[in-house]
Amino acid sequence: MSDSDAARHRARMQARKAVQDAEVARKTIEKGLLMVNTGRGKGKSTAGFGLLLRMLGHERRCGVVQFIKGQWQTGERAALARFDDLLDWHVMGEGFTWETQDRARDIAAAQRAWARATAMMQEPALALLVLDELNIALRYGYLDTEAVVAALQARPPALHVLITGRNAPAALIAAADLVTEMTPVKHHFDAGVKAQPGIEF
Amino acid sequence: MSDSDAARHRARMQARKAVQDAEVARKTIEKGLLMVNTGRGKGKSTAGFGLLLRMLGHERRCGVVQFIKGQWQTGERAALARFDDLLDWHVMGEGFTWETQDRARDIAAAQRAWARATAMMQEPALALLVLDELNIALRYGYLDTEAVVAALQARPPALHVLITGRNAPAALIAAADLVTEMTPVKHHFDAGVKAQPGIEF
Repeated sequence: MSDSDAARHRARMQARKAVQDAEVARKTIEKGLLMVNTGRGKGKSTAGFGLLLRMLGHERRCGVVQFIKGQWQTGERAALARFDDLLDWHVMGEGFTWETQDRARDIAAAQRAWARATAMMQEPALALLVLDELNIALRYGYLDTEAVVAALQARPPALHVLITGRNAPAALIAAADLVTEMTPVKHHFDAGVKAQPGIEF
Repeated sequence: MSDSDAARHRARMQARKAVQDAEVARKTIEKGLLMVNTGRGKGKSTAGFGLLLRMLGHERRCGVVQFIKGQWQTGERAALARFDDLLDWHVMGEGFTWETQDRARDIAAAQRAWARATAMMQEPALALLVLDELNIALRYGYLDTEAVVAALQARPPALHVLITGRNAPAALIAAADLVTEMTPVKHHFDAGVKAQPGIEF
């Protein structure tokens, strides 16, 4: 690279850093975030487990309530067993609804899971609560969206909550601080690749 | 819910399960996936750490090479220290380019990190390699995209590789099995909320 290229690069990087520093200086609020990972793409729950990991690395207490997944063993659950000192994990336990085919039982299970979530939200030491696939329970009408959003808004102000699942309802998106849509650009299932350990479970 | 509602619900769930079973039966291929998390939204690297966690839960060996982040301590790194028995973590170590403002040094650092990545790809026991922010190194021209894609395609066939970062190049997307775009629907930085421990680092 020539000296003038190097000088141009340095000037560009300095300008970028100045913009970034100014942006950082404008951001002064600290608060518990209401976060939503939605969309049809892969990575909604996976990013939730990554976020747990990040918070656990700061030695803060975390909780997970899984609204749809059943009791089967997954890689993430086995791995997070190494954080039993900091992490409280609760599975709704009825498995996917199309396995059980009993709406009344699904509703009762979702309501038990939600009761657990609201109890966990009151634990003063909790830093992050992940409500995995809560959006699915809302989508099927297993829980009342308005009541759920109101309870989330009334949570302790420092508590971070992440909600995952397709089809996040509009009222939840309106209430959230951070909403990310995971969009599949290309998916290996479409090419006939099966679900594999460590990737899908 | 009335009996007829319940019957309709059951029929819908049965139909959905039949579709799902047929889909699962069509997916028979097992292979190492080339995966890309890109887009401007939050969750690209975070989902990468979640994927590591999932694979580590299956007691499989994993590797991480971070192409942009420097040596500072993050929550994810502290947490993943509990997996030292299974995880090999390498940081390029020069920090963000707009801090160093030295393109030649950045290129040399990116090339060292890439050499490390290609060496890790040859370890027979490795199940998953995460190349965090490799897209940024490609975007800045620190590495040659064509050579990188060729090396990725020549990797051992069972090895899963995940590449993160904005602006994934077209040649990488073309070569990938799974590409997810993380799109910000709403971001708390825009509302003046600062980066917080456990959420951003």
